[in-house]
Amino acid sequence: MTTANPTTIAFIGLGIMGAPMAGHLIDAGHDVVGYNRSRPAVDRLVERGGRAADSVADAVRDAEVVITMVPDSPDVEDVSLGDDGIYATAKPGTLHIDCSTIRPDVARAVAAAGNERGVRVVDAPVSGGEAGAKEGSLSIMVGGSAEDVEAARPYLDVVGGTVVHVGPAGAGQTVKAANQLIVAGNIQLLAEALVFLEAHGVDTAAATEVLGGGLAGSTVLQRKAAGMRAREFAPGFRIDLHHKDLGIVTAAAREAGVTIPLGAHVAQLVGALRAMGHGDLDHSALLLLVERMSGRST
Amino acid sequence: MTTANPTTIAFIGLGIMGAPMAGHLIDAGHDVVGYNRSRPAVDRLVERGGRAADSVADAVRDAEVVITMVPDSPDVEDVSLGDDGIYATAKPGTLHIDCSTIRPDVARAVAAAGNERGVRVVDAPVSGGEAGAKEGSLSIMVGGSAEDVEAARPYLDVVGGTVVHVGPAGAGQTVKAANQLIVAGNIQLLAEALVFLEAHGVDTAAATEVLGGGLAGSTVLQRKAAGMRAREFAPGFRIDLHHKDLGIVTAAAREAGVTIPLGAHVAQLVGALRAMGHGDLDHSALLLLVERMSGRST
Repeated sequence: MTTANPTTIAFIGLGIMGAPMAGHLIDAGHDVVGYNRSRPAVDRLVERGGRAADSVADAVRDAEVVITMVPDSPDVEDVSLGDDGIYATAKPGTLHIDCSTIRPDVARAVAAAGNERGVRVVDAPVSGGEAGAKEGSLSIMVGGSAEDVEAARPYLDVVGGTVVHVGPAGAGQTVKAANQLIVAGNIQLLAEALVFLEAHGVDTAAATEVLGGGLAGSTVLQRKAAGMRAREFAPGFRIDLHHKDLGIVTAAAREAGVTIPLGAHVAQLVGALRAMGHGDLDHSALLLLVERMSGRST
Repeated sequence: MTTANPTTIAFIGLGIMGAPMAGHLIDAGHDVVGYNRSRPAVDRLVERGGRAADSVADAVRDAEVVITMVPDSPDVEDVSLGDDGIYATAKPGTLHIDCSTIRPDVARAVAAAGNERGVRVVDAPVSGGEAGAKEGSLSIMVGGSAEDVEAARPYLDVVGGTVVHVGPAGAGQTVKAANQLIVAGNIQLLAEALVFLEAHGVDTAAATEVLGGGLAGSTVLQRKAAGMRAREFAPGFRIDLHHKDLGIVTAAAREAGVTIPLGAHVAQLVGALRAMGHGDLDHSALLLLVERMSGRST
């Protein structure tokens, strides 16, 4: 669906998630100017119908909307607060939508810094993985003022299926932290169930079907069980990134005085898998850890 | 939908799950003879259009199909193997469908004992809880010979939405054990997420909506989040029973040499909630434990 109001959008961070999101915005009729640290991703955006920028400042200078999708809190701080960053370059009134998953306290600080320069800022982390990004069906948890979130909604609706305003600046990141706790745990539980069933000689294809029909059903089971059964662990969403996210949620829980026994436990297991050298695999590779811990590795 | 082939079915165990299942079989046109240890449940079945039995033997004597839905392994052994039990009473060729959740090794032993008396036996534990039983949408994991499972299917289709043959005798129970591991874990993770979000002052109604749209989505979230947010913990599925089921899965994992770190951890947490006197609450009451562990109990 092409928009009646084409907007110049700077899109910073064209990785597994950012590239298809930027593609959907191009398809919707927007003028998308892309920047990425490594150049090939920018070239692919140009082939897709976007324009190339050589730097963050180059991308942002004439943009009405800036979307960032970068790996971690320091990356958002760099591109937002740096000398040639978004807030040093953007026109007053520019809307910055940060889709990265970062610490809620950093999101609040970045938003405050943007506001001081006259830039409107919302945190809008996403869930749904590579498949959700490609399908434009992401679930997006948005923090910011009601006015700024409404301004961001037309762009978020292009890439998301469920877009919900959950609270003030940083609240999107808090909900995303909870999301990452649930996702990591659900994957680990499915991994334990599959290894358990295999060890008992049960047909896991039939088992997965019937598990999905009852109270054990989940999006993780629908999207990840087949790949786990086939031992296909190409990312997807890398263990390295989920490890980073579980650092955020365990710190944010501790800060609020909340005890998260399973969340903390799965954070250790993800850390273990990473320490074993599997940080580049999809998070569903937690199955490998359960196999190793059960003496069933090949 | 009324069946073209009405069958006399003995239904033993008319609790939260058994009563609505027996009701659906009556609605389908079957002649259902009910027995339950406490009499009021039998009276309710008669009001529903069934017939009353005064004992297991009384229910089973003229039945072509016997369905059992009782709490635990010893209960299935009692009603199946006892002096006045199913296998001492049933006509040869009777089909026994055990919908209880019990130990896989007990299911195998019971099936072998039934077969010796000429009774066909399948294990057919269910998932989906009280809501699934009332809706007739249960997920049913069936173990037994292909022939016996096909004979059971017309009756299981009346109470279930997803009916899958997963392997030989006992395999249904093995899959159910995996199911209970996943369900307990998913509930605990949701409880941790909700308490975490509440502590951070996030609107958990909005958060639940957006969590459900992404990779954190699950049947547990759809069915349990609202009740957990409202602190409504009437069963449903009691902590006492889930505690029993987690004993089955941890023992069966140990027997197979499989390590289930989160499964074992959530088994401890369910045990703790039970030890604190909450065995009669719905399993979603794990939220109370997270609150208590976070100093947030009222």
